[in-house]
Amino acid sequence: MAKTEKYIYHFGNGKAQGKASMKDLLGGKGANLAEMTNNNVPVPPGFTITTTMCNLFHKNKCKFPSSFKEELNKAISILEKTTNKKFNDKDNPLLVSVRSGAKISMPGMMDTVLNLGLNDNTVVALSNKSKNERFAYDSYRRFLTMFGDVVLEIKREFFEKALEKKKEKLNVQFDHQLDIDSLKELVEEYKTIIKSKSGKPFPQKIETQLDLTIKAVFNSWQNKRAITYRELNNIPHDIGTAVNVQAMVFGNFSDNSATGVGFTRNPSTGKKEFYGEYLINAQGEDVVAGIRTPKEIKNLQKDMPKAFKQLKDITTKLEKNYKDMQDFEFTIEEGKLYMLQTRTGKRSASAAIKIAMDMIKEKLIKETDAILRITPEQINNLLHPIIDPTAKYDILAKGLPGAPGAAVGQVVFDPDKAVELTDHGKSVILVRPETSPDDINGINAAKGILTARGGMISHAAVVARGMGKCCVVGCEEIKINNNSFKVKDIEIAENDWITIDGNTGNVILGQVNTIQPTISKDLQSFLKITEKYSNLSVRANADTPTDAQIAKDFGAKGIGLCRTEHMFFKKDRLPFMQEMILANTKEKRIKALDKLINFQTEDFYNLFKTMKGLPVTIRTLDPPLHEFLPKTEEEAQELSKKIGISVTDILNKTKDLHEVNPMLGHRGCRLSITYPEILEMQVKAITLAALKLKKSKISTTPEIMIPLVGNVNEFLNQKEIVISTIKQILKEKKSTLSYKIGTMIEIPRAALTADKIAEHADFFSFGTNDLTQMGMGFSRDDAGKFIKIYLDKDIFQNDPFQTLDKEGIGELIKIGVQKGRKVKKDLKIGICGEHGGDPSSIDFCHLNDFTYVSCSPFRVPIAKLATAQSYLNNLKK
Amino acid sequence: MAKTEKYIYHFGNGKAQGKASMKDLLGGKGANLAEMTNNNVPVPPGFTITTTMCNLFHKNKCKFPSSFKEELNKAISILEKTTNKKFNDKDNPLLVSVRSGAKISMPGMMDTVLNLGLNDNTVVALSNKSKNERFAYDSYRRFLTMFGDVVLEIKREFFEKALEKKKEKLNVQFDHQLDIDSLKELVEEYKTIIKSKSGKPFPQKIETQLDLTIKAVFNSWQNKRAITYRELNNIPHDIGTAVNVQAMVFGNFSDNSATGVGFTRNPSTGKKEFYGEYLINAQGEDVVAGIRTPKEIKNLQKDMPKAFKQLKDITTKLEKNYKDMQDFEFTIEEGKLYMLQTRTGKRSASAAIKIAMDMIKEKLIKETDAILRITPEQINNLLHPIIDPTAKYDILAKGLPGAPGAAVGQVVFDPDKAVELTDHGKSVILVRPETSPDDINGINAAKGILTARGGMISHAAVVARGMGKCCVVGCEEIKINNNSFKVKDIEIAENDWITIDGNTGNVILGQVNTIQPTISKDLQSFLKITEKYSNLSVRANADTPTDAQIAKDFGAKGIGLCRTEHMFFKKDRLPFMQEMILANTKEKRIKALDKLINFQTEDFYNLFKTMKGLPVTIRTLDPPLHEFLPKTEEEAQELSKKIGISVTDILNKTKDLHEVNPMLGHRGCRLSITYPEILEMQVKAITLAALKLKKSKISTTPEIMIPLVGNVNEFLNQKEIVISTIKQILKEKKSTLSYKIGTMIEIPRAALTADKIAEHADFFSFGTNDLTQMGMGFSRDDAGKFIKIYLDKDIFQNDPFQTLDKEGIGELIKIGVQKGRKVKKDLKIGICGEHGGDPSSIDFCHLNDFTYVSCSPFRVPIAKLATAQSYLNNLKK
Repeated sequence: MAKTEKYIYHFGNGKAQGKASMKDLLGGKGANLAEMTNNNVPVPPGFTITTTMCNLFHKNKCKFPSSFKEELNKAISILEKTTNKKFNDKDNPLLVSVRSGAKISMPGMMDTVLNLGLNDNTVVALSNKSKNERFAYDSYRRFLTMFGDVVLEIKREFFEKALEKKKEKLNVQFDHQLDIDSLKELVEEYKTIIKSKSGKPFPQKIETQLDLTIKAVFNSWQNKRAITYRELNNIPHDIGTAVNVQAMVFGNFSDNSATGVGFTRNPSTGKKEFYGEYLINAQGEDVVAGIRTPKEIKNLQKDMPKAFKQLKDITTKLEKNYKDMQDFEFTIEEGKLYMLQTRTGKRSASAAIKIAMDMIKEKLIKETDAILRITPEQINNLLHPIIDPTAKYDILAKGLPGAPGAAVGQVVFDPDKAVELTDHGKSVILVRPETSPDDINGINAAKGILTARGGMISHAAVVARGMGKCCVVGCEEIKINNNSFKVKDIEIAENDWITIDGNTGNVILGQVNTIQPTISKDLQSFLKITEKYSNLSVRANADTPTDAQIAKDFGAKGIGLCRTEHMFFKKDRLPFMQEMILANTKEKRIKALDKLINFQTEDFYNLFKTMKGLPVTIRTLDPPLHEFLPKTEEEAQELSKKIGISVTDILNKTKDLHEVNPMLGHRGCRLSITYPEILEMQVKAITLAALKLKKSKISTTPEIMIPLVGNVNEFLNQKEIVISTIKQILKEKKSTLSYKIGTMIEIPRAALTADKIAEHADFFSFGTNDLTQMGMGFSRDDAGKFIKIYLDKDIFQNDPFQTLDKEGIGELIKIGVQKGRKVKKDLKIGICGEHGGDPSSIDFCHLNDFTYVSCSPFRVPIAKLATAQSYLNNLKK
Repeated sequence: MAKTEKYIYHFGNGKAQGKASMKDLLGGKGANLAEMTNNNVPVPPGFTITTTMCNLFHKNKCKFPSSFKEELNKAISILEKTTNKKFNDKDNPLLVSVRSGAKISMPGMMDTVLNLGLNDNTVVALSNKSKNERFAYDSYRRFLTMFGDVVLEIKREFFEKALEKKKEKLNVQFDHQLDIDSLKELVEEYKTIIKSKSGKPFPQKIETQLDLTIKAVFNSWQNKRAITYRELNNIPHDIGTAVNVQAMVFGNFSDNSATGVGFTRNPSTGKKEFYGEYLINAQGEDVVAGIRTPKEIKNLQKDMPKAFKQLKDITTKLEKNYKDMQDFEFTIEEGKLYMLQTRTGKRSASAAIKIAMDMIKEKLIKETDAILRITPEQINNLLHPIIDPTAKYDILAKGLPGAPGAAVGQVVFDPDKAVELTDHGKSVILVRPETSPDDINGINAAKGILTARGGMISHAAVVARGMGKCCVVGCEEIKINNNSFKVKDIEIAENDWITIDGNTGNVILGQVNTIQPTISKDLQSFLKITEKYSNLSVRANADTPTDAQIAKDFGAKGIGLCRTEHMFFKKDRLPFMQEMILANTKEKRIKALDKLINFQTEDFYNLFKTMKGLPVTIRTLDPPLHEFLPKTEEEAQELSKKIGISVTDILNKTKDLHEVNPMLGHRGCRLSITYPEILEMQVKAITLAALKLKKSKISTTPEIMIPLVGNVNEFLNQKEIVISTIKQILKEKKSTLSYKIGTMIEIPRAALTADKIAEHADFFSFGTNDLTQMGMGFSRDDAGKFIKIYLDKDIFQNDPFQTLDKEGIGELIKIGVQKGRKVKKDLKIGICGEHGGDPSSIDFCHLNDFTYVSCSPFRVPIAKLATAQSYLNNLKK
C-alpha cells in the first residue's frame, strides 16, 4: 500500500512504459501503441489511462480520485515536453485525440474525440503556425461537433443540419469545398448550438475540455450500445476500457496529407495482399463516415511513394511481430507517416482458415497456433449458406436459431405438400406449429423449417441440424392458421416468399440474397491437422448412407449414433411398422416384423458399406409406439385400406397408447422388454447386414446400443436377447462376427448405478439430451417458454440444451464415468446428445476422459476443432 | 469335512436334539416340537429331517444322497425303540404322520400324510391291538386317501366320490356313521382307484410308503400354491421345508379320544381367553375339513376334565415360554393328551395391538418387543374398513390396490354427480378413466374411486390415500363408455351397485358386507409408545383443517406438506384462479389474485390454528396452469359467463398452455419466477394468517417451501421475493414473525447441487415422487403399463413408486443429504413423497439421518410404527 498505483502509462519518441502483453491494463489500442513505439514505429506520442481507473471511476460514482488529477497534470506536462507544444499556447498549441480502447476490441461501440485543445485562441495560433487558416477552422469545427456529440450528448443532427445548410447556401457537395468564411461562421453557429442545447457555453479552458472528455469516454463503456455488444460477444462487463490521449497529427492539414486504414492481408478472402483505403486531406472520421469515396491503397504508391513504402514496411514488420494479420490506421501529415493503431484484424471465416494455413506454410506460426486461432463459429459459418451481409431487409419476426444457415423459399404448411412442391423444383420453407417424426419427409424436402413452438433441441431443431438444414424454432410471434400465418397484422399465405436465418433466428418477408458455402482445400487440410492434437475422436450421428458419407468426408471416425426409428418412418415401411404395432398377438407382430427385416438389413448394409469398417453404433428402437400411428381419422382410413384393420381399432390403439408424458413413457428398451420380437428383428438385420458385407471382405464390428436403460436388469434382459439372436444366426450361417453391446446413459439412475451396468456393458454413450431433460426436469418441447426468461433473469448462463450444464448434469456424467471405469478400466465412453457438437461441452468430455464425441454430420468439423482446442488449452494449464 | 452333516434330529421321551432357536434348520414345527419335548410337554416321539436336506434334495434332481437312506433307517430304528412299536409289525405296528414345516409358517400350503405304516397286514394288527376294527379301517381309508392325493397326485375327488356313494347307499350323513363293512369295502375301492389312476398298485411296503411320502412333502415346497404364497408374503424361495415324521396318536381311536386346535388368546379380538375347538373321535383333517361342526373348547372341560386342565396348563406354560400368543394342535387318545404343534398364532390387527399392550401390562414382554411384533400392514388394516372375511363373492375385475379400505356404492361417472348424489345421502363409487385435480370434489364426495388407468401413485391413488378413501386404480379390464362400463360382456350402468377392495384391487358386482374400523385406546397407547423409540419425527401431508386434525389425532408432529393448489380448485375460488391465468397483463393478474388472497389467508389461518404451533410447511403453487383451465367448450362457456372473457380466448389460452410433457413443464417455482405476483400473494396470505393467529397467543413459524428447484439461482430468486414480501407486511403491521424458507429436493439436479442450495435454504424436503419420476425417467401416469411387466420379469423387485428405489434414487438422496449437511450441519431434512409412509423407505430415511418423514394423515400411524421399528432394528445391528 506504500506505493500508490500508477494509472497513466506514457509512450513517445521510441520509448513506452507499456508493452503488447499489457492489454488487460492498457486495453488493446494502448498496449499496441506502446509496443509500436518501442519498436520504433512512428507513433504520435501520448499516454494511456488504465482500465483500472475506468473501474475505479465507475465505482466512485463517476468521479476521479484526487490523486489522479495530479497524475494527469504531470502526464500533460510530459506530453507537452515531448511534443514541444503546450495546451492553450498562443504559438504552438498542443492538440490531442482522446480514444477509448478496451482489452477486447469493440469497434465503433465507444467514443472518440479528436482535435481537443482548440478554442478561440488556439485556433488562431494553429492557423498562424500552420499557415493554413482553412485547416485550423475545419479542425475546430470538427472538434466542436465531436465534443458536443460525445461529451455534451447533443444530437449530432443539429451540427449536421447547420453544415448542410451552409453547403446548400454555397452550392457545394463536399465538406472540404467549404471556404474559410463559411467555416468560421459554422464555428460560431456550433458554439451557439452547444450553448443553447447544453445550457452552458462551450468550455474555452483546455483542462476542462480534457477532464470532461476523459469522463465521457469512460462513461461510454456503460452506454447501451456497448453493453449489448458485450452481451452478444460474451465480453465481461467488468474489464473496463482504457483511454488513450495522444498528440494529434493531421491528415486534413493539406493535400500532401492523408489518412487511411488497412489490412496486411485481404480480410475477406485471406489472400496475401496489401489491402486498405485512404483519403487525401481528411481526418479519420471522414473515412468511416463514407461521405467521400476513399481510394484503394495501391494508389498511395503513386500519390505518396515514400510514405507508401514506409507504411508497407512497417505493417509487414508488425505482422511478423504479432504473428497475425494486422488491421491498422495511419495518418500522413505533410508527407510524414504516423501509425495510429494496429491490432489483430477481424476476418471472414474462409479468410481465417486460409491465413492460418498460409502462415503455417510461411513458418510464421505453428500448427497449434493455427488451431487455437480459429473459432468454432467460424467453422460453422463456413458450412452453411449465410444471408448476404450487404443485403438490406426488415425483420418480420424473431425466433430461436434452431439450425445454422439461411434459406429462402415459399411458405408451405403441410409436409407432403413440401415434398410435392420440391419435386416440382420449387424451394419451400416448411412452417409448422412444431414438428414430429411424421414430418420427416417434409423437413427433408424443405430448404428450411420454421416452427412456432419448441426450443433449441426441439424435434425440428435436432432433425434440421442433423440434416444440415436451416431452421428457426420457437418463433412465438407467428400465429399459424389453416393456410396462412400472421405476425401481428401481417398475413403470410401459402406460397408467399420468406427468408429465414438460422444463425440469428430472424424471419424475413420476401427473398434475401444468400451466399453459398464451399468446402475449401484449406479447410480440409486444417481439419486433418486438428487430428494430430487430440485424443478424443469424433464420430457422427447418422441414420442414412448419405449422412454417413457427409460425416466421413468431414473426417468422422465412425458413427456414434444410428437412430433406427428413422428407418421406419419411410413411406414404404411405415404401414408394416403400423401393422406390427396394431397386432394384438406376438404371432401377428412377428409377421409384420418379417416384412420389415429386409428393409432394415439393406439399411444397415449400406451404412456399414459407406463407413468401410469404421465403427457403427446402432441404437435399437427408441421412440414410443404412438409416434408411428395415424393421428387423424383420415390417416386412419388410409392405413385401414392398406392393412385391413378397422379404423376404430386403429384409433382405439392410438388412444390406448396415448401417454400423459411420452418423454417418460413406454419407450427405449422398455419397448423391447415388452415386445422382445422387435429387438430380435433389429439384431437379426444387423447381423445379416454385417455378414453380407463380410463377403466383400469388409469386416465391421457392429456396436449394438440399448436405449433408455435405467437399471442393469433391463440391460441384462436385452443383452441376452441380442446374444442369443446373433448366436442363432451365426450357427445357421456357419459364420463368425465380432460385435459389442453397450448402452445409452441417458437416465439419471443409469449414471448413478453405472458400476452395476459397466460390469456387463462394452461401452457407454451419454445421451445428454435426455439426461438434461430428466436431470433438470425439463421437457425439450416445452421448456423454450421459460428458459428464455431464465436467461433474461440470469438464472441460467446458457441454454442447457445447447451447452452442457457442467455443474449439475456434468456432475451426473462424472459419477457415471467414475463408477463405470472403476469396474471396467478401459470402458469405451462416448456422448451422442446434441452437446456432442458443442465446443464447451466437448471440453468437458475431454477433461472427463471420454473416448469419443458424436454429433450431427454438419457439426463434425466444429467438433474436430473443439477436441483439438480442448486438448491444447488443457495442455497449457 | 471329516464329520458328515446330520440331517435328522430326534425328539421323544422328554429329550430332543433340537430346540426352539433352530427354526432355520428344523422349520418352525420341528423346532417347536423339540422345544416342547425338552419342556416335558407330552409330544408323540419322532424326528425331523432338516431343511438342508430339502435343498439338497432339490439340487440333487429330487434324489436323496445315499448316506441319507442309512441315517433314515437308523432314525426309524430309534423311533421303533422309543415307541416300542415296529413298522409292519404283526402285533404292534408303528404308524407315523409325515408333515412339512418351514421356518416361516405357510399354513395349508404344503402337504401332510397321516397314518403312514398301514397296509393290508398292519391294519389287522391295529384292529387287534386296539380292539377297534372300525378305527383301524377308518385310519387305513384315510391313509389311502392322503397317500393317493399327496404322494401319487390322484385327484381327491375320486376318493370323495366313492365315499359319498357309500354314504348315500347307507343313507348316512357323516363319515363316522359308516359301518365296518362299508369301510372295508371302501379300502378295497380306494386301492383299485390308486392302481387304475397311478398305474401301479398301492405299495404295501412301509419303507416305500415312507420314502415316497418324504419326497412328496419335499416336492410340495415347489408346488404352485406354495410358490405363490411365498411371493405374496415375501418368503425366500431357497429356505426349504423340514419334514417331521412322528408317531401317530389317534383322536379317532374312540369316543374317549379327540382332536383339536386352539389359541391361548382370542386371535380375533385379542381378549385373554382360552380359545379353540375340538372334535370327539376324529382326526385332525376332520376339524379342518369342516364336515362336522367342532365344539367350542370350553366344552372339553365337561367332556374330558383331566385332559382339559392339562391342555390349559401346558398352553399357558408355552405362551410364557414363547412370550407370545400360541396357536396349538392337540390330540387326545383314550383320555391321554398329546401336543402335536405349537406356534406363534396369527391374529387380526386389532388383536395384535390388544395382545401386545396386554402383554406389556402383564410384564411378559417389553415395549420394544411390542413395537417389533406389530406389522405396518396390521396398522394399515386397522385404519380402514375391510371386506367381511366371511363374505362370499365373485370378482368382476382386478386392478391395482390404489388406496386401502373397502367401499360399497352406486356407480357414478361424473364428479359433480358424485357430489350431488352424496348430498342426497347416497353412497357412490366414482368411476373414471383417470382422475385430475378437477375431480377433487367428486373424489371427496365418493366412498371410493375406481380408475381404468394409472398406477399406485397416479393422481387418484395419491389423493385417495391422502383422504383415507378406498381406491382401485389401473383396472384396465373395465372399458368406460358414456354412462356405463363393461367388463368383457357384463355391462355396469350408472347407479348399479359395486364393491371395491383397495387392499386387493378387487372390483365386485353388488354390495358386499364391510367391517368398519375403530381407533381403539390400545392403538392410541401403542402409538404413544412408539414415540419413545425413534429420533425421526412423523409429519403429515395435509391441505385442509380436517386432514390436519386427523393427522394430529394420529400423533403427527406437524405438517410436512400443504399443497396450496388444492385450495384453488374449490368451486368458489376456481373462477378467480382462472381469471388470473387468463389475464394478459401483470396488473390484471394482480387484480384476480387480490380476489383469492382472503380465501388463502383463511385457509392458512385455520391450518395453523388446528396445528396449534406445530410446524406447518407450505409449498407454494406447483402444478402447471393448464390444469386449472376448462378443457371443453361447454366448460369454457360457463367460465366465460362468470368472468367475461370470450370462449375463444379461454380455449386459445388452454391450447397455448398445452404441454407435450407437463410433468417436465412450466410448473413449480418456474411459474412464480415467470409470474412473481402469484408467490407474492401466497406469501402475503401466509404472513397475514400467522399474524392473525398471533392475536390468539398462538405463535406459529411458517415454513415456506419452494417447489421444483433445480438450480440455486431459482431458489435465490424466490427467496428474495418471499423475504421482501414478508418484510413489507411486517413493516405495515408493525409486527414480527419468525419463518423458515426451504425447498423441495425433487429434481435430480437439486440433489446433485445440494451444497449450493443448502447455503441459502433453511430446510430440504425430498419430493420422492418427482425424484423417482425424473431419476428413473418414469411418468407415474404412464408407467403402470410396463412396471407390471418389469415386476413379472424380475427386472424390478418393487414398484419404485411404492417403495423407494434405494440403489438408484436412494443414491441421489444420499448425495443430496451429504452435500447439504456438508455446508449446513444442522440442515432440517424431510421427505414428503408417497414414500414418506412406506416402512422400508422410512428405514432408509432413518439410516440417512433425516429429521422427519411426512405422509398422508391415514399413514401417520404406520409411519410412526415404522420409525420406531427402524430405530430398534438398527440399534440391534
